[in-house]
Amino acid sequence: MDRLFNFVGGGSGPWRVTSIKPVTGDSLSPVDRLAVLGGAESHPSETRLPLGGRWMLRGVVSNERYVTHGEREELRAVQPPLGRETSLLAALIPIRKSNAWWGLAQDERRAVMEEQSRHFRMGMKYLPAVARKLHHCRDLGEPFDFLTWFEYAPEDASAFEELVGLLRGTPEWKYVDREVDVRLIRD
Amino acid sequence: MDRLFNFVGGGSGPWRVTSIKPVTGDSLSPVDRLAVLGGAESHPSETRLPLGGRWMLRGVVSNERYVTHGEREELRAVQPPLGRETSLLAALIPIRKSNAWWGLAQDERRAVMEEQSRHFRMGMKYLPAVARKLHHCRDLGEPFDFLTWFEYAPEDASAFEELVGLLRGTPEWKYVDREVDVRLIRD
Repeated sequence: MDRLFNFVGGGSGPWRVTSIKPVTGDSLSPVDRLAVLGGAESHPSETRLPLGGRWMLRGVVSNERYVTHGEREELRAVQPPLGRETSLLAALIPIRKSNAWWGLAQDERRAVMEEQSRHFRMGMKYLPAVARKLHHCRDLGEPFDFLTWFEYAPEDASAFEELVGLLRGTPEWKYVDREVDVRLIRD
Repeated sequence: MDRLFNFVGGGSGPWRVTSIKPVTGDSLSPVDRLAVLGGAESHPSETRLPLGGRWMLRGVVSNERYVTHGEREELRAVQPPLGRETSLLAALIPIRKSNAWWGLAQDERRAVMEEQSRHFRMGMKYLPAVARKLHHCRDLGEPFDFLTWFEYAPEDASAFEELVGLLRGTPEWKYVDREVDVRLIRD
């Protein structure tokens, strides 16, 4: 199950936590460091908290649910990989969406995300500055529905804040009923 | 996690297994009976095989991925519940779809399923005779991607065979790379 990733907040890991802020609903407990465990190291049935961990959030990289073939081609042409040397900053933003969201049909969710909120179109403007990876967790029985991981260079920090601010102002975000914003630095 | 269901093949359960046939790829081991455990009895992290079980397939009832609002309204108007007194027969059909399928974008998968294969439109013709419930399992690290459970009365058995035969002849089914057909009777 090499598509599963475990985000472990605690005392170890290559990322130092600089802030944990509740945006909507409950926050996560404060921790010093974050480790991202993935691939052969994890399976959905393995939910034990690793030694030294205070919390663990799990998510699966899954098939794309909304973008069209054309949009995906546009994205792929400019999407950067994770792990760039210049990407000293990162953000882990877990969100949960409301029952009202999950009760919408596919075409209705797509309309809110793109036609009304321009989610992908907006994100595209911040590529390749901000690398992004989406993990799904609603069907794993997790407290959040999505874990999005972002990586960027210090000189792109203000662009990243702009992107996050714009997204939070969209009609799509009215359906977000829990959100935490975890910021990190690689040291 | 009341959306998770475990299908346990073994020596106990209210359903007697009348046949297990591999349609594409490997079959499942023969068993006498099937139990469907759900709701509070199950969690994605709980993967122990219950006592007396020979195999267990797990799936989550998730949000709808393809039907539009209009299609869903049409479906809801005629969809029967599970557990009808007359539904003495059932089928559990686990399928896995190929990497080629999962590599398609959302609009491409929708086009294969509905515009080319008429999956929902076709299924609608067999409502309310055939009750259906879809469980997702690809992101749980399971051997199949979907588990579909069907229930129907003996007098609708030929209608059910017709539906299954039609679906297997669609362009969508070219993407199915493993399929097992388990038939059951409630006794």
